[in-house]
Amino acid sequence: MKKHNFSAGPCVLPQEVLKKASEAVINFNGLDLSLIEISHRSKDFIDVMENARSLAIELLGLEGKGYKALFLQGGASLEFLMVPYNLLEKKAAYLNTGTWSSKAIKEAKVLGEVVEVASSKDANFNYIPKGYSIPADADYFHCTSNNTIFGTQIKDFPETNVPLVCDMSSDIFSRQLDFSKFGLIYAGAQKNMGPAGTTLVVIKEDILGKVSRSIPSMLDYKVHLDKDSMFNTPAVFAVYVSMLTLQWLKDLGGIAAIEKINEEKASLVYNEIDRNPLFKGFAATEDRSSMNVTFNLTDEAHKEAFDALWKGAGINGLNGHRSVGGYRASMYNALSVESAKVLVETMQELEKKVG
Amino acid sequence: MKKHNFSAGPCVLPQEVLKKASEAVINFNGLDLSLIEISHRSKDFIDVMENARSLAIELLGLEGKGYKALFLQGGASLEFLMVPYNLLEKKAAYLNTGTWSSKAIKEAKVLGEVVEVASSKDANFNYIPKGYSIPADADYFHCTSNNTIFGTQIKDFPETNVPLVCDMSSDIFSRQLDFSKFGLIYAGAQKNMGPAGTTLVVIKEDILGKVSRSIPSMLDYKVHLDKDSMFNTPAVFAVYVSMLTLQWLKDLGGIAAIEKINEEKASLVYNEIDRNPLFKGFAATEDRSSMNVTFNLTDEAHKEAFDALWKGAGINGLNGHRSVGGYRASMYNALSVESAKVLVETMQELEKKVG
Repeated sequence: MKKHNFSAGPCVLPQEVLKKASEAVINFNGLDLSLIEISHRSKDFIDVMENARSLAIELLGLEGKGYKALFLQGGASLEFLMVPYNLLEKKAAYLNTGTWSSKAIKEAKVLGEVVEVASSKDANFNYIPKGYSIPADADYFHCTSNNTIFGTQIKDFPETNVPLVCDMSSDIFSRQLDFSKFGLIYAGAQKNMGPAGTTLVVIKEDILGKVSRSIPSMLDYKVHLDKDSMFNTPAVFAVYVSMLTLQWLKDLGGIAAIEKINEEKASLVYNEIDRNPLFKGFAATEDRSSMNVTFNLTDEAHKEAFDALWKGAGINGLNGHRSVGGYRASMYNALSVESAKVLVETMQELEKKVG
Repeated sequence: MKKHNFSAGPCVLPQEVLKKASEAVINFNGLDLSLIEISHRSKDFIDVMENARSLAIELLGLEGKGYKALFLQGGASLEFLMVPYNLLEKKAAYLNTGTWSSKAIKEAKVLGEVVEVASSKDANFNYIPKGYSIPADADYFHCTSNNTIFGTQIKDFPETNVPLVCDMSSDIFSRQLDFSKFGLIYAGAQKNMGPAGTTLVVIKEDILGKVSRSIPSMLDYKVHLDKDSMFNTPAVFAVYVSMLTLQWLKDLGGIAAIEKINEEKASLVYNEIDRNPLFKGFAATEDRSSMNVTFNLTDEAHKEAFDALWKGAGINGLNGHRSVGGYRASMYNALSVESAKVLVETMQELEKKVG
């Protein structure tokens, strides 16, 4: 049965990418060896790493602008620590828009002073704070572009003279932004890029080298940059699948092309939430995420019926996070418009059944 | 053409493991979803993680002895840092047997005093130092059980009252040891366990909680233990393949069974090195590794002929590391006795040809 995978992450990946990845596990590049049993120092794998790095820079429109890409390990969670280790000398400014921001703030506090410029905790993070000011003497400003759990997304990033650091784990490569506004962008692969196990870090090199602490090798961006992202054995399979997904995106027409598809999916589902009296959205309308749509039933009595409908339609991963409850439709790049339509149909079927 | 994969790591894995891994990338557990596109919080993946953790403890004979297993990210290189972060209060003792020990020492020095109890650097690490003493007031003693680059292996571990910490990246699960002598064992997966991207850490829980520094979450073993190795999204694919390989080893008869096979392979190749006048071993005889056999031609003039012979026989990954030169035959668990025989035959063919 065809599945419609709305999982929040790890999540849906393009079928052609999965097919190539599966083949490479048996025989990679016609070597009669598996991708995962060759040396990471072999030419075949170095090509994969270099290709993945340059595709990331190209797709973000950052060629020739002083940026380099790394594929590290440890997920965004390790970046929560690496960012302050490399950038926090005296004081850092953080915007708190949910669980992931809060975790980033917690780790930064181990290393220095953190100013929380604003928070939407007062309303269970259902909106993005606006109108806050960033201290001019902050070493950097950190924000989370998209909040998977609460379904909110920053639409306008602040203008500031301090380096802008952004956790884009759940919406990188999904929409057009001026990425050159950012000093550092990081993203766990397991949403729009590949399997869990690697983290893309895009760094404007000139923001480094300004802290006085000694940085352990594995936490030092400069060490990884100097070694072309091969300081130690990388997560070979995860990097390879990320490369395939970035190539798939490029072939599709890049971020501009996928943004249109993502907008179409988001419109379909949000329009239905707003139209159908059985449903209500969780996030503030102007801050709604195009990646993670959070919504509830207006009457919990229909839960059993709705759950039966979407499960029966082959939908996977629609349950909301325990912090919000209800439902969450995660619609990352590889989710088809068809899957979004199937979800809308089940919502309409519920209305016919109980309305 | 059938390949004989002597790569030093990432390296040969069992064919049946590769086949199952390849299938799971398309359809995992009959879910009609890929292993790499389901939630790591799903029951299907939690079962994988728990199975991998308990197989590791079982195979090492550590059940009921106060140990727990973690599958983390960052390779042994991140463990070089995590070990002192969690265990080094005042002073740690390290044995220096090569490149990896040296790197571990370098990272520990960022956090405290390091006593190098002995080193074999004087002879390009071609032997394992013996007869050293470990300070009784050290917080722990750290060693590297097997040195991939130099082809040496610790046969007898020291008796000491301080916690024994060992980097077993390249020989874990290859030979029988009393693993309950160790307080902490870590190993990058990419030799005897699985693909690059996950690190097995086996911890005797009572050695933790004795340092006064505040430990960042991702570097804190206790945080990972409390979350059953799922503090953040784990490297799903690498953990799954590790689980398959550990199951393969259990089905084969465990470490006792593979040890016999590893001894047979090592004997075949070392006997030929000692017999054949065209070759000489690099490592001191009593410290020879059963995993990585380092050797040279006695006359470099035969290099071209030998290289053509082994490449023609389908052998992969035989070139030595630049620090040693010559050749290195890495014979991890999944390398067949047949492959070792093929290598010996090429060495004998060279003798016939030029002898």
